[in-house]
This record gives sequence, C-alpha cells and structure tokens, in this order.
Amino acid sequence: MRLERLIDLMTQHDMEHLIVSDPVAIEYLTEVKFKTDERLLIFLVDAAGQHRFFLNQLIPVADFPFPVEWYSDTDRPIERLAQVLGEGKIGIDKNWPAHFLIDLLRQKPTVQLEHGSDLIDSLRQRKDEVEIEGMRLASALNDLAMEQLIGEISPGMTEKDVIARLEEIYQEVGSDGFSFEPIVGYDDHSADPHHQPDDTELGQGAVVLDIGCRKDGFCSDMTRTIYIGEPDDEFRRVYEIVRAANLNAIAAIRPGVPFSEIDAAARDTITAAGYGEYFIHRTGHSIGREVHEAGDVSSTNHQPVEEGMIFSIEPGIYLPGKFGVRIEDLVLVTSDGVEVLNYAGKDLRSIS
Amino acid sequence: MRLERLIDLMTQHDMEHLIVSDPVAIEYLTEVKFKTDERLLIFLVDAAGQHRFFLNQLIPVADFPFPVEWYSDTDRPIERLAQVLGEGKIGIDKNWPAHFLIDLLRQKPTVQLEHGSDLIDSLRQRKDEVEIEGMRLASALNDLAMEQLIGEISPGMTEKDVIARLEEIYQEVGSDGFSFEPIVGYDDHSADPHHQPDDTELGQGAVVLDIGCRKDGFCSDMTRTIYIGEPDDEFRRVYEIVRAANLNAIAAIRPGVPFSEIDAAARDTITAAGYGEYFIHRTGHSIGREVHEAGDVSSTNHQPVEEGMIFSIEPGIYLPGKFGVRIEDLVLVTSDGVEVLNYAGKDLRSIS
Repeated sequence: MRLERLIDLMTQHDMEHLIVSDPVAIEYLTEVKFKTDERLLIFLVDAAGQHRFFLNQLIPVADFPFPVEWYSDTDRPIERLAQVLGEGKIGIDKNWPAHFLIDLLRQKPTVQLEHGSDLIDSLRQRKDEVEIEGMRLASALNDLAMEQLIGEISPGMTEKDVIARLEEIYQEVGSDGFSFEPIVGYDDHSADPHHQPDDTELGQGAVVLDIGCRKDGFCSDMTRTIYIGEPDDEFRRVYEIVRAANLNAIAAIRPGVPFSEIDAAARDTITAAGYGEYFIHRTGHSIGREVHEAGDVSSTNHQPVEEGMIFSIEPGIYLPGKFGVRIEDLVLVTSDGVEVLNYAGKDLRSIS
Repeated sequence: MRLERLIDLMTQHDMEHLIVSDPVAIEYLTEVKFKTDERLLIFLVDAAGQHRFFLNQLIPVADFPFPVEWYSDTDRPIERLAQVLGEGKIGIDKNWPAHFLIDLLRQKPTVQLEHGSDLIDSLRQRKDEVEIEGMRLASALNDLAMEQLIGEISPGMTEKDVIARLEEIYQEVGSDGFSFEPIVGYDDHSADPHHQPDDTELGQGAVVLDIGCRKDGFCSDMTRTIYIGEPDDEFRRVYEIVRAANLNAIAAIRPGVPFSEIDAAARDTITAAGYGEYFIHRTGHSIGREVHEAGDVSSTNHQPVEEGMIFSIEPGIYLPGKFGVRIEDLVLVTSDGVEVLNYAGKDLRSIS
C-alpha cells in the first residue's frame, strides 16, 4: 500500500527508478528490517513494478518477499545495478554514500539523477493507522516516565543522575530506551536548548526535562520545565507565556493550516509578551520512526498540514545566564483538528 | 603534519581538491572535533594549500584555525563550493551524502570525481606516536576490565548481566565506555561470532567475551573465551588450536609481510588441525579512531604491513549448536616485528 502510493508519486514525477538505501525507509516500504553496515544495500523501486533488492550474501534472510540480486564481497554489484537502470530519471536516496554514486556514474555517465528521498519523506509525513497507534503508545510511555521522573527528582541529584534514573524508568515502563540523548538542564543550563547534561547538582531553580523513548520502532519526544523551590515572579511570568504559546499553537492546528501559521501562533504569543528575541528556534519538527523527520514547524515552511501528520509543538524562552522554559507536546492532525499525544500536566510544578 | 602527508598523496594522484566530510577524518587531519548532523560539513583540502571549511553558522567555534565559508540554513553553500573548485580532479569522501553530490553535479557538470577517502585511509593505517600511545592506553584499560570481568563472572548471571557489569567496570577503570556493542556468548551462542547477548543464564560451558572500550578517541577490542565448570576434551582441543592460530599469526608479523600471509598463518593452523571449515571470518581488521578501519587481515588483502599499523588478530572455530572459541589481541607492527597491545593471559581458564 505504501509502495503503491510511492509508485503513484514516482509516476507523477516521471521517475523510472528509485534507489532506496536508508534502512528506515526500506522498513517503512517493505516491513523488512536491515542493520546498516558499509556494504551496499539497495531496495530498487521500479515505477513499472519490477522491484528488487541488492543484498550482500552474508545477510541472512528467510522467505524474502522481493527478488534479490545477491552479491559477494568480491563482486561488483554497481555494474549489475547500472545494467538494470534505463535511460529515464533515477531518484537517489539523499544519504546514499557518494562512493557508490561515483561508481554508478562511471558505469553509466548518462544517468539522469534526481533527489529521491523527498517522495518517500512526503509519504512518511502522513502517518497511517498502524503508525498512529505506535506513536500514541510511545508517547503514553513517555508521559508515564515523565511523571515518574518528576516525582523522584530532588535537590542534590546531578543532571547525569537524573538521566541515569530515566534510563531505568524507561526500562521499567516497557519502552525500548532513549529515542535521543535526553536533555536535563538545571538553572542557567536550562537557557541552552541543546545543553549536554553534566555533573551539576540540582538545587533551587528551573529544570528543563526534554526526554523521549522508542517503542516498537516509534519515537516519542516531550519537554516539561519544573522548578525546585519557590519560583520567583520572573520565572512564573515566563512560564505562563511559554505555556500560552504552546496552547495557542495547538489551538491553531487543523488540516489546511500551513506549518508557518502554527509557528506564528506560538511566536506571536511570545513576541507580544516582549520575549520574541529569546525564542531562538523553530516551534517544532515532524517525528515518527525517526525523531526528526521532514516537515518543520517553522516560519519558512508554508506547506499546509494534513490529517495524519505528527509533529512537536515546543516553544521556549531562553534568558542567557538566568534560566529557560520549554514546553513540548507531540500532536496529531485529525480530520477536523488536533489530538495531543501527551497528557502530562502543563501547570507550573514546583518541588521541594 | 598529517595534512602535509595528505597533500603529498594528493599531488601524487594529481588531485586538486579533496572534500572531507567525515568528522573522524576531519579530527584526524585538523584536531578539530565536530558532531555530525544532516547539515553540510566540509573540510576542503587544497593541494595548493588554500584549505577552507564550509560550516553552518549555527556551529559554535572560537579561534578557528582555518578560513571558513559560513552559510545559513537558507543559503546555498554548494554553489559557493562549486565556485571554489577548479577543473582538476576532485576527491570525494566515501560517505558524503549523495544529495550534496547531485547538487554539485548540477552546479558543475564537468567536475572530475574521484574516490577521495582512500588517501586519508591509507595515512590513517600507519599510526603516529600520539595514536600509538592512545591505542596502548585503550588496550591496557581493556585488559584491566577483562581481568576484572572474568573474576566476577559466575553461573546464574545472564549474558546481559555480564554486559551491564562490564559497562560499570569500564567507568571504574576510567575509560570512555564501549567502543562497540560487546559480545557475550554462552554455550551454543558462543558458536555465533555476532551473537546478540540476551537473558540466557550462564551455566556449565564456554563463554566468549568480545569487548572493547574507547579512551580519548581511541578504540580497543579483544576477545577471550573462558569455560564455566570442567572443560571436556573437545573444548580443550579446539581451544588449543585457536590459541596456536593466534600465536602463529602474531609470530608471522613484521614489516613487509602481506596481510594475506598473516591470515594464512592463522588459517593454515586451523585447517591443518581439521577445523578449517569452522573458521568462517577474516583473521582481523585494522583499528584506531574507529573499531573497523581500512585494512583487513584477510586472504584477499595482499598489501604488505608497515611499521605503525595496528590491527586485530582474532582467529576462531565455531561448531554450530555446540560451542565456539575466539582469541583476539590487538597488535602493532614495529620496525622489526610486532608488539602485542593486550596482556590478559591466553591459557585456558575455567571458573566454577
């Protein structure tokens, strides 16, 4: 079904073959899982339906559902690939290693190269029912882990201690572990959206928790900002602005609305409150089998959102040397609006 | 110095520019560390000495030691790259993502593409003094961890328990953690050279321990096979054959000897003992900043080894459904022979 939709897109783009080498894209199209190594791995999608794989004979496969061109470490599989390709346009996976492409160009200097991943990425933006269920589950486990983690955080723990405990919690809740390196940023570290957790001990102040787990191949991603001790007025004010930005962006989501308008709903809220210059990143990113997928929630992406798209809404305000606040949920575009995949509360929480 | 040696090689190969995108290769050449993301990262080596970087302006750098072409997310850095390149041969990093190369070909269809990584890989095969010291240290920590681990293994632990304990030990000895996913294979699992550790409990039988840590950017890698309980005659016989193969291969190493002869020294030992068909992989691989580097110890690699090369010697015998034995050390080719970087004993060890 996904493969049929891809062939429709290839036909629209007058593309004869598509070289798919990314294991995530191959699994998306075929449900067959591969590990990557440095050897050639190709799923060659043929607009005329004669798909085939190019696989090293060391790869163990049973009952393989597609024809395979097997090759050994001493064969020259690119020569065989060149023989299979016609004179029409060939889409190339964006991350195909250049040395394969150089060899293909030597075999077939007249080949018409096209960017190939965009077609698959655009399909992957609209999740199907299986993917939506997987994303709901991964986010539910992430909510569970977040609540558990916040309940256990206490002054004296280091940022790295929090990460170590989170890793255990992700096991306890049945997830498959981190979907990305989590961010735990205390105090002025919370003002760096990409802070790398270190041995700083938590005390009075803000703590940004940006965490995600993987479950059955799907990624979750959420952020909550908590406060240890009694928050001062500035923190409370900034927190409420970010929360309003998060809620306003979510309220703007329905099919047909451009990503850029959703970004604007968050950005305008923060700018109107006087903190526009401290919101230094896009509002969100698409997510699914990978943490970052094609489709940014940004001022420059004017693509309208469609039913089935899943992305993050994660506005933030970062006051250098002081503190930062970010509140992030994953959202699913529904037929007439939006479903928020995260349930953990967004009221300001302070712990002692 | 490394850069000067690279320019010498480029001149010999009549290569005008070399596009280096692999962060490990960039660090090797410049000592500057980068994290990879999907954005363009290029160190453009110029045979005439006018090297420059292409960097996204989001990358924080202070006192950068090379000229930089900064670009933003909305710029088209490949156009600027195309302007800088001349009409001569351009070496391309083997793993440069294809979409960049396609864009470069559109900007400059006449560009003469060459495989570029081979030159750097051949330099990286011969380690300099700093690299040799780093490799000695990483292997010393690995020996220490291996001895500690073997001392703590006991029946009832699962394969995964052993891995979890090893992770702690690597911290305790001051390493920077795993250099690859370690292999712990008990009983018939030891007969699979790429076994993925699971929840199987250890009991009477063979245990293969294939482990490595990273230290200051350098990788160690070693294997010992131990026995829980009293080994039977078949295990003892196979163990001594593998040990002899390991020692014979090491004894064959000196500058000028082809990798294939070192492979043969191990392989012939095992074949002569009647187990040739159960030694199902190459004898070893080069190693350094990455666990697998260019230069296999295999029957098809006739390159002579040179002073400063570091690679593994890891013969094995794998009896499906029964057990496997592998004994692996890292070795350094010296001016007149070989230095073994691992010290952990290779006598058959049984524990109770």
